[in-house]
Amino acid sequence: MVIPQLSEKALLATGIRIGTQVRTKTMEQFTTRPRPDGLHLIDYSKTLHRIDVAGKFIAFSGAANTVVYASKDYGRVPVEKFCEVTGAIAVTGRFMPGTFTNPLFPGHLDAELVVVADPASDTQALIEAAKMGIPVVAICDTDNITDDIDVVIPGNNRGRKALAAIFWLLARSVQTNSGILNADQQMKYTIDDFETKLTESDLAEEEEE
Amino acid sequence: MVIPQLSEKALLATGIRIGTQVRTKTMEQFTTRPRPDGLHLIDYSKTLHRIDVAGKFIAFSGAANTVVYASKDYGRVPVEKFCEVTGAIAVTGRFMPGTFTNPLFPGHLDAELVVVADPASDTQALIEAAKMGIPVVAICDTDNITDDIDVVIPGNNRGRKALAAIFWLLARSVQTNSGILNADQQMKYTIDDFETKLTESDLAEEEEE
Repeated sequence: MVIPQLSEKALLATGIRIGTQVRTKTMEQFTTRPRPDGLHLIDYSKTLHRIDVAGKFIAFSGAANTVVYASKDYGRVPVEKFCEVTGAIAVTGRFMPGTFTNPLFPGHLDAELVVVADPASDTQALIEAAKMGIPVVAICDTDNITDDIDVVIPGNNRGRKALAAIFWLLARSVQTNSGILNADQQMKYTIDDFETKLTESDLAEEEEE
Repeated sequence: MVIPQLSEKALLATGIRIGTQVRTKTMEQFTTRPRPDGLHLIDYSKTLHRIDVAGKFIAFSGAANTVVYASKDYGRVPVEKFCEVTGAIAVTGRFMPGTFTNPLFPGHLDAELVVVADPASDTQALIEAAKMGIPVVAICDTDNITDDIDVVIPGNNRGRKALAAIFWLLARSVQTNSGILNADQQMKYTIDDFETKLTESDLAEEEEE
């Protein structure tokens, strides 16, 4: 797959294929050999394929009917930017109980499709989607349990740059599959635009780690 | 889930949840305990959920852009009936090379979505769908390798009655998700209409087994 604006080298530099030291049974199919330090690596051709599958489903279901949810900090900017670009509905931070299940809740959303950034931390969204029979797409890392996920996008869902890359690629796929963008056309946005920026205190913390 | 025209007892009588003696790693999530005779049983609430997810994706992609393929005999009538009811494109028997990949082939089909009845015997369709980046939905039994399947419908894909039930339920889901049928309305067709009928010689063979 040739992606305008993104070389293979630049894609790999985002850490998109870096998994964890744990690999669940259902994620094994998406991994290659582990690195010498024990981190499992994701076959990123499968990541790209599933991003495109998910992009098609979002385009066909209608982005306006798609809720994209991330609970963790690094997912906030990618999800909000993705929704700004595609017209999907962003939910970040705490997932308020009743968002899908209670029509009387003021923040109630009628979703045809849900995308979550991390099934391990976004459980309330998954429980409510299951109750309502809403199909769930999720970015799953090598250590994720995927039982409640209908379409798995294998990928690093902890890294700032990896999350930015995945949501940028997903936005691109939604745009091409909606006929807004040609396959060889450039998006108006770069991966950098999708990335949560660190404050100086974050940077100090990251260096300590 | 309440399904008009179909009691739980009648659903189970189709053998929809009867798997095989083999269970692959990725199918384990869909199974319950094995039977005393060693056959793995499928959690049919998961079958029903995934049928509905697949029905939504077919409805949203447009049934007319969906190719449904079964190579085996017992899949022929369910697939043809499903396509008659929903407007999807049926392909049965041998999958002619080039059907998806060669635009110059007279039988070429432009598909947005592919549904296959059995990934183990429908490999040519899977290879071509992968090449073209077409999302694949497949009915997967407990012994199926699901690596190339984007949306797994766990279910018995060998039984005549089970295949009829799955495609009937899928047709129902496509119709309700397309707004053709209300959730509490009856379909015009029964599961029996979706079933491959045995000839007298088939019956004699079945008795011998």
